[in-house]
Amino acid sequence: MSEFQLLRGIYSANAALLSRHRERVVIPPGDDLAQIHLRSPELLIGVDQMIEGRHFRSGTPIELVGRKAVARNLSDIAAMAARPLACVVAVALPPSLDHEAIMALYEAVRATAELFDCPLVGGDTGSSGDAAAPSAASAPLVISVTVVATLPAGVPRAITRSGARIGDGVFVTGKLGGSFGPDGLGRHLTFTPRVQESIALARMLGERLHAMIDLSDGLGRDAGHLASGSGVAIRLDAASIPTHDGCTWTNALGDGEDYELCFTAEGPVPAEVEGLAITRVGEVIAADWGQALVSLGTAGGAIDVTSMGWEHGR
Amino acid sequence: MSEFQLLRGIYSANAALLSRHRERVVIPPGDDLAQIHLRSPELLIGVDQMIEGRHFRSGTPIELVGRKAVARNLSDIAAMAARPLACVVAVALPPSLDHEAIMALYEAVRATAELFDCPLVGGDTGSSGDAAAPSAASAPLVISVTVVATLPAGVPRAITRSGARIGDGVFVTGKLGGSFGPDGLGRHLTFTPRVQESIALARMLGERLHAMIDLSDGLGRDAGHLASGSGVAIRLDAASIPTHDGCTWTNALGDGEDYELCFTAEGPVPAEVEGLAITRVGEVIAADWGQALVSLGTAGGAIDVTSMGWEHGR
Repeated sequence: MSEFQLLRGIYSANAALLSRHRERVVIPPGDDLAQIHLRSPELLIGVDQMIEGRHFRSGTPIELVGRKAVARNLSDIAAMAARPLACVVAVALPPSLDHEAIMALYEAVRATAELFDCPLVGGDTGSSGDAAAPSAASAPLVISVTVVATLPAGVPRAITRSGARIGDGVFVTGKLGGSFGPDGLGRHLTFTPRVQESIALARMLGERLHAMIDLSDGLGRDAGHLASGSGVAIRLDAASIPTHDGCTWTNALGDGEDYELCFTAEGPVPAEVEGLAITRVGEVIAADWGQALVSLGTAGGAIDVTSMGWEHGR
Repeated sequence: MSEFQLLRGIYSANAALLSRHRERVVIPPGDDLAQIHLRSPELLIGVDQMIEGRHFRSGTPIELVGRKAVARNLSDIAAMAARPLACVVAVALPPSLDHEAIMALYEAVRATAELFDCPLVGGDTGSSGDAAAPSAASAPLVISVTVVATLPAGVPRAITRSGARIGDGVFVTGKLGGSFGPDGLGRHLTFTPRVQESIALARMLGERLHAMIDLSDGLGRDAGHLASGSGVAIRLDAASIPTHDGCTWTNALGDGEDYELCFTAEGPVPAEVEGLAITRVGEVIAADWGQALVSLGTAGGAIDVTSMGWEHGR
């Protein structure tokens, strides 16, 4: 079976499954482009890729690789309080990957996307070099996913990183830290992107929800993105940071890849949204020259944690 | 300079340039997602990647690689008679690529996109492995571009591959064949995607323009996509196929990567659109079991050319 035939099979199967999205997917995959019908004129778009050896270890179960490639992008949608519309995927396949693994990868991408109402409407797949060429053996698997999203009813604008105001509380959802696990196969591969919770939060808080980001680089660095985007500073309180069992605030700040939400809001914020815990972890303060963008109050005093965490290079 | 700083510089420069698209680009790159404002509720989307060693030779000037990565996607937009809205790019960088080359690559992507009014609104860049690890030396450069487009005024629907009708003429724009050139650095790297011409054609022919595709796999194979998509067959006439100097119909059918348009239409079609030649090369006929999907009439008789050309694996 040639690669072309293999992919044709995958796309046909997907096209059949897409029939449930008939109102949204006007032209399904198989043409030069797919066509989506929008109900709102506001479109959100972003791309994230996963590179073997960089974003996941060689030997990671291929289903989890496909799942994460989509879930990371869905987490970006959640960070804007947007609603998924569709996704497309490009995969550069190392020659070592057999057809069964390729099928499993695609199925994981498709199923994860479908679960979050983000139908897969296009793809491009190619081989990195030639299985006969020994040098190609080290070509990494690269999966790039692009998502498009729109504003849900009841959410008048996307929540950016730049709206934080002095006096806002700083909040996180869920618990943080230890996402890689002892074997590298932890929550960073199996997390639930907070798409539903984010929309519910935006509806609940309305104009009081000022800024939001998803936690991929670690709380210190991501709070830094909020602070620099908004021209403010953030003071976190170490004792209040909710952590997973066995983790401390150093894990919450340094491990990264929690894919929880971090947001700033004015006024009272409930203790949970859709069953997901919300914890106040700090406050937005004025930025001062020479002061830390993000400082953390600990038992031993305040420390600068702006640069503590994962540098994803983005 | 870290990769993060490098990219921040690129994105900031691009964000400044994006100010000219203020009405369209509501949230510029730098947040979790970018936001685009649409004037039409119809969105077209597709992704195409370029893998070093597969879609371009190692050693190809990096500017031409970046240009082609975008231009191929723009050609898909042209194939639907759509108008570009925006693009995003993911790049997996081999450790061998230095900062200067990375900057040149991004600038080529940005400038090509800008030239066709398709602003670059997002990106993700990561390294394939570690420069210190000798095995990473063979990791290929992978560039994946996703484009979104919409329907221009005066074009009521996207032109798909599936609308060809028996009795339609089959037409191509420009000349075909020899796109790789003697040194591999030919037109497949420098072609002009027919975005403007396609929109003008769709407006001119209106409902008489039935089906369209861009010529990437070669005329035989791409006409086959039109035929199979439409449930018809196509008869081409070898003598009428417009070819570049030094090329014959075998090049037009076999070389691929012309990125001209091939369309079927009812009734009279002008000899050019926006200064680009249009040539009638065949007609749409009924599909018959056991007959070729695409046949070519030559001096020596009719031959089946359905599978003649480039298999891009898509």
